[in-house]
Amino acid sequence: MRKIIIGVMGPGDDATAKDLDTAFELGKLIAKQGWIVLCGGRNAGVMNAVSKGAKSAQGLTIGVIPYVNTNISDGVEIAIITDMGDARNNINVLSSNVVAVCGMNPGTASEVALAIKAKKNIVLLNVENKSIDFFQSLDKKRLFKAQNAIEAINFIQKLVSSNQS
Amino acid sequence: MRKIIIGVMGPGDDATAKDLDTAFELGKLIAKQGWIVLCGGRNAGVMNAVSKGAKSAQGLTIGVIPYVNTNISDGVEIAIITDMGDARNNINVLSSNVVAVCGMNPGTASEVALAIKAKKNIVLLNVENKSIDFFQSLDKKRLFKAQNAIEAINFIQKLVSSNQS
Amino acid sequence: MRKIIIGVMGPGDDATAKDLDTAFELGKLIAKQGWIVLCGGRNAGVMNAVSKGAKSAQGLTIGVIPYVNTNISDGVEIAIITDMGDARNNINVLSSNVVAVCGMNPGTASEVALAIKAKKNIVLLNVENKSIDFFQSLDKKRLFKAQNAIEAINFIQKLVSSNQS
Amino acid sequence: MRKIIIGVMGPGDDATAKDLDTAFELGKLIAKQGWIVLCGGRNAGVMNAVSKGAKSAQGLTIGVIPYVNTNISDGVEIAIITDMGDARNNINVLSSNVVAVCGMNPGTASEVALAIKAKKNIVLLNVENKSIDFFQSLDKKRLFKAQNAIEAINFIQKLVSSNQS
Repeated sequence: MRKIIIGVMGPGDDATAKDLDTAFELGKLIAKQGWIVLCGGRNAGVMNAVSKGAKSAQGLTIGVIPYVNTNISDGVEIAIITDMGDARNNINVLSSNVVAVCGMNPGTASEVALAIKAKKNIVLLNVENKSIDFFQSLDKKRLFKAQNAIEAINFIQKLVSSNQS
Repeated sequence: MRKIIIGVMGPGDDATAKDLDTAFELGKLIAKQGWIVLCGGRNAGVMNAVSKGAKSAQGLTIGVIPYVNTNISDGVEIAIITDMGDARNNINVLSSNVVAVCGMNPGTASEVALAIKAKKNIVLLNVENKSIDFFQSLDKKRLFKAQNAIEAINFIQKLVSSNQS
Repeated sequence: MRKIIIGVMGPGDDATAKDLDTAFELGKLIAKQGWIVLCGGRNAGVMNAVSKGAKSAQGLTIGVIPYVNTNISDGVEIAIITDMGDARNNINVLSSNVVAVCGMNPGTASEVALAIKAKKNIVLLNVENKSIDFFQSLDKKRLFKAQNAIEAINFIQKLVSSNQS
Repeated sequence: MRKIIIGVMGPGDDATAKDLDTAFELGKLIAKQGWIVLCGGRNAGVMNAVSKGAKSAQGLTIGVIPYVNTNISDGVEIAIITDMGDARNNINVLSSNVVAVCGMNPGTASEVALAIKAKKNIVLLNVENKSIDFFQSLDKKRLFKAQNAIEAINFIQKLVSSNQS
């Protein structure tokens, strides 16, 4: 049976302390649900934090890695080496049942936009209202704002169980 | 000598009449500068209009095509068949000296975000202030708003001639 | 800790009965080693057989899927949706510690060639001597011929334990 | 009207002097037919030679470039920056009406295999009989051996004019 994959996207080197805390917590809670965490896999920012959070709860973690020489997070157990840089962002969202977003930067914005195009449901954390307004102008139905990791998990549970994912 | 390539991005089937008019005009003006138009290449929306505009002025047009079976615009003279769907959006922006945007939808938003990440200069046409505000929150320096195709060309000329492109 | 991934490549619809038997056995033996099977993920041929073999021994299976609409093997537990057709073949080999090949067709040949280019060790099963001669003309050191799945596993064990993988 | 694109594939740094001579001649003859040369675009080997040959006859040249930081051949006028390494090999063959091959190495072998899979016609130059035998075991109908650049062009003309391309 296919496993449920939750993609967690967010800034790398420019992640805030709050982004990192939220991502770690989110990774832990995703793992406790028995779901797999998928992220961009670099040893930086949200990718690193969410992988380590999931591992802290014995979860399985997939990193979709940009380049052959990328410095990979220790939290990544399964490394998918794409060697295709930011073009891998499309793989990240297509492979996820639900996309969770923690913080915002240009790479993350491209993933939200691609996720909207791919008709994925998206849960946003630590994202300004101005950004949410913009993405809602692209698609009103698939964007959910969560206040914290627990609220995000509750959203994702509903999406997964209702097969809307 | 390497030719100058101006990427023109925008909605396909959901382009507005104004987007199409602007894209056609933009294609014509780019061709008159001796530059090449690069677009997503489908027989729809801004891709189709900008290619036909460029051809109307004897310009060269490149379409970076999503799939082997894509219906390609008649305006495209050089078809680069990627067969990689929306992952090609990254190729579109990386191959362009300057990125011009005509209208907005999820695919176009992913291209603007990837262009910001790739540190390309971006000229925006027919884009709401709310959208521009969002993209400027990602990068203040590389986004230029133009009122019409002529103003866009003037911007691009400056960017190209100052080697900022 | 990163998990060991063994890529298993081979024909889809044109696989022989022997290819399918070998692939199923290979999947089972890889799983018994605690390694992960990675394959092209389609519901056909060697991809399907190796995934089901691995699952029969409670192994974990990754399918690197060509298109959003691909018919995915029931044996695949983790589906990485690339939507980039045969360009994913490069991801298959880059993500594998060792590449095992079961049978031969054009797609498989591209994977062997890309694996040689990426300096991966390759174990060949059910491949004619003429084909092996050709690949050895490209690289003498990284190609190993195995008579059956057990011999292949023994080779792979040595490669993995000597860190040559 | 869509332009005819002839892909020319072959070794980079490991090209022989004969490969380089043949590639330069081939580029010149392709340009004289009014066709476009497409190659891997690096400043090395067959890619560099075929681009310079085409330019010597005022032809148009496209380089499908592996990485953002790749050293690009001076002969390339249109650079398509993929940033996806060897996964671009699939784009090279899909975008070509006919694929010509000059010499052989692992990267080139992957392109021949992908071209066979994509049902492209392929003209082989400076390739050993052992290699041709192998590729013909994959597909008997689409492989043509040429003794020199002129013979290759004659083959390609027939393929293009009969719409078999």
